[in-house]
Amino acid sequence: MTRALGVCYYPEHWPEDQWPRDAARMAEMGLRYVRIGEFSWSRIEPQQLNWGWLDRAFDVLADAGLQIVLGTPTATPPRWMLDKPPDMLAWDAEGRPRAFGSRRHYCFSHAGYKEECARIVTLMADRYGRHPALAMWQTDNEYGCHDTVLSYSPAARTAFQAWLARRYGDIDALNAAWGNVFWSMVYDSFDQIGLPNLTVTEPNPAHVMDFRRFSSDQVVDFNRLQVEIIRARSDAPISHNYMGRVTEFDHFDVGADMEVATWDSYPLGFMDEGRGKATEAMKREYARQGDPDFQAFHHDLYRAVGHGRAWVMEQQPGPVNWAPHNPAPLPGMVRLWTWEAFAHGAEAVCYFRWRQAPFAQEQNHAGLLRPDDAPAAGFAEAEAVAKELRDAPEVSAGQAPVALIFDYQAEWMWETQPQGQGLRYFDLAYQTYKALRRLGLSIDIVPVSHTDFASYAAVFAPGLAHVSADLAAELRCCPGTVVMGPRTGALTADFAIPATLPPDIAGFGVTVARVETIRADTPRALQGGGAATLWVETLEGGGDVLLACDDGAPVAVECGGGRIYVGAWLDAAGQDRMLRLALAESGLPLLDLPEGLRVRETETERFWINYGAQPVQFAGREIGAADVLREGVEVAV
Amino acid sequence: MTRALGVCYYPEHWPEDQWPRDAARMAEMGLRYVRIGEFSWSRIEPQQLNWGWLDRAFDVLADAGLQIVLGTPTATPPRWMLDKPPDMLAWDAEGRPRAFGSRRHYCFSHAGYKEECARIVTLMADRYGRHPALAMWQTDNEYGCHDTVLSYSPAARTAFQAWLARRYGDIDALNAAWGNVFWSMVYDSFDQIGLPNLTVTEPNPAHVMDFRRFSSDQVVDFNRLQVEIIRARSDAPISHNYMGRVTEFDHFDVGADMEVATWDSYPLGFMDEGRGKATEAMKREYARQGDPDFQAFHHDLYRAVGHGRAWVMEQQPGPVNWAPHNPAPLPGMVRLWTWEAFAHGAEAVCYFRWRQAPFAQEQNHAGLLRPDDAPAAGFAEAEAVAKELRDAPEVSAGQAPVALIFDYQAEWMWETQPQGQGLRYFDLAYQTYKALRRLGLSIDIVPVSHTDFASYAAVFAPGLAHVSADLAAELRCCPGTVVMGPRTGALTADFAIPATLPPDIAGFGVTVARVETIRADTPRALQGGGAATLWVETLEGGGDVLLACDDGAPVAVECGGGRIYVGAWLDAAGQDRMLRLALAESGLPLLDLPEGLRVRETETERFWINYGAQPVQFAGREIGAADVLREGVEVAV
Amino acid sequence: MTRALGVCYYPEHWPEDQWPRDAARMAEMGLRYVRIGEFSWSRIEPQQLNWGWLDRAFDVLADAGLQIVLGTPTATPPRWMLDKPPDMLAWDAEGRPRAFGSRRHYCFSHAGYKEECARIVTLMADRYGRHPALAMWQTDNEYGCHDTVLSYSPAARTAFQAWLARRYGDIDALNAAWGNVFWSMVYDSFDQIGLPNLTVTEPNPAHVMDFRRFSSDQVVDFNRLQVEIIRARSDAPISHNYMGRVTEFDHFDVGADMEVATWDSYPLGFMDEGRGKATEAMKREYARQGDPDFQAFHHDLYRAVGHGRAWVMEQQPGPVNWAPHNPAPLPGMVRLWTWEAFAHGAEAVCYFRWRQAPFAQEQNHAGLLRPDDAPAAGFAEAEAVAKELRDAPEVSAGQAPVALIFDYQAEWMWETQPQGQGLRYFDLAYQTYKALRRLGLSIDIVPVSHTDFASYAAVFAPGLAHVSADLAAELRCCPGTVVMGPRTGALTADFAIPATLPPDIAGFGVTVARVETIRADTPRALQGGGAATLWVETLEGGGDVLLACDDGAPVAVECGGGRIYVGAWLDAAGQDRMLRLALAESGLPLLDLPEGLRVRETETERFWINYGAQPVQFAGREIGAADVLREGVEVAV
Repeated sequence: MTRALGVCYYPEHWPEDQWPRDAARMAEMGLRYVRIGEFSWSRIEPQQLNWGWLDRAFDVLADAGLQIVLGTPTATPPRWMLDKPPDMLAWDAEGRPRAFGSRRHYCFSHAGYKEECARIVTLMADRYGRHPALAMWQTDNEYGCHDTVLSYSPAARTAFQAWLARRYGDIDALNAAWGNVFWSMVYDSFDQIGLPNLTVTEPNPAHVMDFRRFSSDQVVDFNRLQVEIIRARSDAPISHNYMGRVTEFDHFDVGADMEVATWDSYPLGFMDEGRGKATEAMKREYARQGDPDFQAFHHDLYRAVGHGRAWVMEQQPGPVNWAPHNPAPLPGMVRLWTWEAFAHGAEAVCYFRWRQAPFAQEQNHAGLLRPDDAPAAGFAEAEAVAKELRDAPEVSAGQAPVALIFDYQAEWMWETQPQGQGLRYFDLAYQTYKALRRLGLSIDIVPVSHTDFASYAAVFAPGLAHVSADLAAELRCCPGTVVMGPRTGALTADFAIPATLPPDIAGFGVTVARVETIRADTPRALQGGGAATLWVETLEGGGDVLLACDDGAPVAVECGGGRIYVGAWLDAAGQDRMLRLALAESGLPLLDLPEGLRVRETETERFWINYGAQPVQFAGREIGAADVLREGVEVAV
Repeated sequence: MTRALGVCYYPEHWPEDQWPRDAARMAEMGLRYVRIGEFSWSRIEPQQLNWGWLDRAFDVLADAGLQIVLGTPTATPPRWMLDKPPDMLAWDAEGRPRAFGSRRHYCFSHAGYKEECARIVTLMADRYGRHPALAMWQTDNEYGCHDTVLSYSPAARTAFQAWLARRYGDIDALNAAWGNVFWSMVYDSFDQIGLPNLTVTEPNPAHVMDFRRFSSDQVVDFNRLQVEIIRARSDAPISHNYMGRVTEFDHFDVGADMEVATWDSYPLGFMDEGRGKATEAMKREYARQGDPDFQAFHHDLYRAVGHGRAWVMEQQPGPVNWAPHNPAPLPGMVRLWTWEAFAHGAEAVCYFRWRQAPFAQEQNHAGLLRPDDAPAAGFAEAEAVAKELRDAPEVSAGQAPVALIFDYQAEWMWETQPQGQGLRYFDLAYQTYKALRRLGLSIDIVPVSHTDFASYAAVFAPGLAHVSADLAAELRCCPGTVVMGPRTGALTADFAIPATLPPDIAGFGVTVARVETIRADTPRALQGGGAATLWVETLEGGGDVLLACDDGAPVAVECGGGRIYVGAWLDAAGQDRMLRLALAESGLPLLDLPEGLRVRETETERFWINYGAQPVQFAGREIGAADVLREGVEVAV
Repeated sequence: MTRALGVCYYPEHWPEDQWPRDAARMAEMGLRYVRIGEFSWSRIEPQQLNWGWLDRAFDVLADAGLQIVLGTPTATPPRWMLDKPPDMLAWDAEGRPRAFGSRRHYCFSHAGYKEECARIVTLMADRYGRHPALAMWQTDNEYGCHDTVLSYSPAARTAFQAWLARRYGDIDALNAAWGNVFWSMVYDSFDQIGLPNLTVTEPNPAHVMDFRRFSSDQVVDFNRLQVEIIRARSDAPISHNYMGRVTEFDHFDVGADMEVATWDSYPLGFMDEGRGKATEAMKREYARQGDPDFQAFHHDLYRAVGHGRAWVMEQQPGPVNWAPHNPAPLPGMVRLWTWEAFAHGAEAVCYFRWRQAPFAQEQNHAGLLRPDDAPAAGFAEAEAVAKELRDAPEVSAGQAPVALIFDYQAEWMWETQPQGQGLRYFDLAYQTYKALRRLGLSIDIVPVSHTDFASYAAVFAPGLAHVSADLAAELRCCPGTVVMGPRTGALTADFAIPATLPPDIAGFGVTVARVETIRADTPRALQGGGAATLWVETLEGGGDVLLACDDGAPVAVECGGGRIYVGAWLDAAGQDRMLRLALAESGLPLLDLPEGLRVRETETERFWINYGAQPVQFAGREIGAADVLREGVEVAV
């Protein structure tokens, strides 16, 4: 694998005579890729089709030696589209159509709009699918951004009814699966079923869960329509640029249809918005660096979504415009984020965007260039990475020693029924990820459909509210440690409590007799340190007690065969203790990294990454502030 | 009076072959009552009437020796009902119909839906009204739960206009009563009057207050329709299960039509949700016990609503599913809550529910049994109470030494015009109740329609914003101390300031010259301790000053004849001082109970109730953690 | 100029036989003006016109020697109006019509309603325009109160499209100006353009900004319609009573059509509601006095809006009814507020209201009289001022030594694109005003259209996001110090970043290379004290560095010719340092006033105003608690 840099560019924003200068400058600074096109529908088809400008943009960029990532323009249908297939707008949960005037206003379930998308993608793929400069396709842009997966429109309602009819066959099966006898919610026919918004009190969680599955499937279908059209007309790989911390659709399902997964990395905005639940202290200390684990988590996630092939399609190069606070990255961070992406296996990192636009919504979003064409602060750091890449060897990410299972359906299940205010699956999985990273481990994130666990020293699957028989069978093939819980196997696929109580998975001979959710400020201390908090289960059975509360109640139990069930949400100290117990016999070297320092090891390299604002000493090395130290893997720790 | 236990059961949720086993187990553990039916409309009338299953359930339960409480199913009309009388849905204050998919979606003002209710209740009463196992009726379920009293639907608007026409006769009378000359709000006819939502700034408080009265009357009418049908067909007493801390309709008015009042007691959920305004410290300390006064307050309230006959129809037996945090009760609390209900005069306590349902909205709500049929933690405690009841003597609640007047219209008046952010009548009344309890007093809560105050040593009526001439006359018959204020008699029935200023009640020769509302963090210290806070009146006239601010401003004045007017919201220390002054000559023994300990005395018994997590010593006794100590009344304190 | 007192009176609220007694009492206590009529449309025109009562009210008041301010009644159209020109209601940002039942429910863009207003104002001006007791007109009441400038109604949408067509001529010009190529937001015709609410993510800021300008223009047009009718029929000056801290329309534009500006001063309510962003500590300490600078700011602002002629039309005389907390003013404050208004050039101060109304929305709003006709606490203080005025000399406000430019369009620009959570132009301007006041300076607030800066020692213009060529030219005439920034000249009139980067104003040879917004709890320390916070610019070029961050980054730079650019939001200590540097050579005496004490100097007088609850010593004087000390200007400081 080689590594490369790129940039997002909007030729339609600039006079044509500037394009050649821009292209030359991109090439000169060492960029390989240019993404274009994804918001340009109103230029491509003002009323009549108008490909000329895009043809010329392709030529200018290709002439400069650049390779093109072409986005389909379906995230921003033009204003005239609203009158063509009427009612194409998504509706919000308050029951209101979302208005034209920004982006992503379409409803994934609208048949008329999907026809328009098929038409424009067909034309685009016919025109550019074999262009020699075309390196990759991107479908649409940031599915789900701005809360756009769930639509409560009439079109969505009709499509949901059809989806349910396909899933359940007849209405009695649905009534039985959902438990509609409760509160007399029984339906006589599919066309009586509404969307689960604006109910008096909470709707049936089975109703909500199916709506979540349906909504995700609508994204998959919408994307697949484009993929199939493109694939018939082009050999270039197809990708989508996912947005960080969006879980309203199943990225693995969407990603299954494409060759590459890319994502959009905005470390400062993400942390300040609270997407990774950073504490206020951390938000202060890392305001100009971002959460030291948040980017890594997404790199590891999208490497899995992309079947091993991942890019950063949009890399923050300076202050953004959309977070509560928008500081500049600390000097060094743009380079650090870029190298961190490569450390986690990214094939390319593209900066968003080439030149800051002086107009419209994102006019305060930094680019590599300022609006006056002078280099912005990120320019030199990107250029430095480009230089460093010239000397970088062929690399291979390889496999990490431990795996973390991440599941979008689990996220929806927890959201549908948190049982305690603000309890989220993502946070539980992410805190486990952070704890593994504090020990210096490199991690593979894998989906529940993963089929080869044999080579992992340990597999972690916290909070997997439903465990399929297939996954259970695959895990039985793992010779290492398998750590599950809390809330693992707590629900059937129909969103009911399993007949024999959780965890509903063979090999874990323990029973969750009761669940409590408790206040964060009343944690229950563990014997020996750490605490159970937020979600605490009462466990019966199992084998050796690994962790117990001060009152003796078991919290983590060894179930035999290397299977460990953890019956609580643990605080950081508790997580560390649990992981060290679980990995004690794995043979893996476990570090105790200082705050801000992280390490990532691939088959060929080791990267020490310091998010801190001060240099740090560790294991005989000094890693500078906001700096990355790259080593060959033969170096001992 | 004898005491008994019962349980809420949903035969429609379980296979018929399980019913006999369930019934036998209920009887065996000592339960007497089973409530059924209240959410079963879709089973009774899927499309055609289908009584068979309910007939059989009656038989099975009766055969086991159980007595049945039968709920009318009108809280959960089936989905097909939405198409039968169209527009039966309630509308929220945002102007949106509330959707099907949970419960309580009907509008109390919808004539078509009321016809349907009359039809099903008639059929049900005809069928089961004389069944030998029928012990009691329950109308509907938890009126007002999920904010369902106030509906802003077109049906409500039309009914409101008719209600106003009846109340005022002609539109000029309404304009005069409301003061509509203000801001040119004059109406020319009743059909011009809208509901008081979505106005530009606050609507006329007189408009709001009449809408509140109307909305309460709609509940009364809705309930009365069922009561009249049942009464013509059955001799069993009729009840409704009120929900704790619901004040949107007048429970005394609804209760006036029925023999028994029952309520649904969820101590942990109530406190965590903040229904009793517990501090965060208290929420931490009592997370697994509940607010030590909140249940008692409701027992005393519903004893009055039920004309002396009260039940707990739903008693929390373990973690619930709906509060921000849902811990398990401390061991002992299920028994404690049960005995506390009996101490306050309850005839029966029914646990909600028999077996935890594995499906739908309440799947995480504990029952006496777990979903796998094993006993849950509450089971043994309920069983223990059943055993204790076998030895319990005939008892009589009798009358308490002091009375607290509680008035739903006062709550609406404060809500309509709080004059200070978050000031609520309920909190004022409840804080007075708590202060009386800290002194070890047993309390009768009485409505403003109470007619015999002669036997009370003292009557407290804080915050009674309007005092009718009838109540004023009745209070004159009280030879003991009568303590009123703040904001007592501050408004006419038409929601205007009385001509001679508050308090508008004979016998209190004091004038409220001015009202201030102040920040909770700037209390005004009282001479001698305690403070006035939140609501502070400037008093003129009256007699001896009992309490005064540091600057000499009078806060509580003796008005002669044992009448005391309190011109401020007092903090806890101030409340205690005021009560001790007011009761100094009453001859009542005043205790100084430790935090967490409460005492309740009836004609025949005294109960020491320790909500604390630690045992407590008091007056030569030790009361265990989460325990109840029962004594005969001859024991001296 | 002479000074006088007045009062707001509602004869329609009281029986006619009370009017003469009221009028006599007003005259006796020394009031000169009575404002009437502004909410009386339903009395003037119940269905048929009915002028009789108003004729008689005029006569009664005139007979007592009082002069009348007559309000047009258009803020409260009667209920029947809703059926006459249908759809006259404003719509809120959620897309819902705002309901009848309070006030200000009309949409400024509704042609039918404007015709009705023209009709009633014509009739009123014909009838009273030449009445000898008429002193002044007031149009409508408190434009913008209760968030009523921005309407999202169909009428507003149509009017907005027409406004845009007039502004841009053709749709291509609009698309270019707004940058609609971004996100394919291009329009094909003006009738495609919607209002900028309910979009998926933020709408184009240029779209929003034009909607803000349009909405302000609608207020100007609505007001001008009335002004033109009145002016043709009356010689009395015309005014409007603006509400404090309302910035949704341009007060200078509305004021340009009228002779006098008046405003409604509610110091306690304003502070408690947070309109001046007082800290919680300040809210506690000044709960009964108000923010010591907030009234002064508005006096200075409205003196400019009124071309030198300003009144307080509504002065809080006791507790109000609408703030989160409503305490009584500290004794002395009613007099203090009144004298403070005069100190800042007010010609008259009218108390709101004569007698507290016992009914409707404002029944808990104090008047000079209580509802029982006894004097309320404010009465004696108003009477005292009336006595003091008898001895007061002819006075003249004159010009202040420094000017602060205040611009409503800047407020809209910051609101449209704050770039950091909660960053508001008003707060920045107000904090600069406060800092100037801490130095003891008297200030003129001036609009961007001001044309004579020659006589000011210094001009301050923080946050002026767009600077017109005209203003830039006028400022070049100022021989003193001109201090601009941050964010000055940051945007073109079309809401785009200027081609050569900010600040886009000649004479400031500095470039804003980058903008950061940072957390309030991570300020960047300045060398020598104080800090940059919230909004921090990276400056390039300019001349001498006046203030720099600890890392050397320049924060304030001298640009030559007395021009200073400040590239950050400064904390209070930083503001003080910056002002002292900027004014070092101005020759102005700079004080260091203790907290709570303010000084205001006119051509003829100096006022020491102590908002503190304790007496204060300063420069050889003692100023009492809540007191005002008036001196002739010959007294040295």
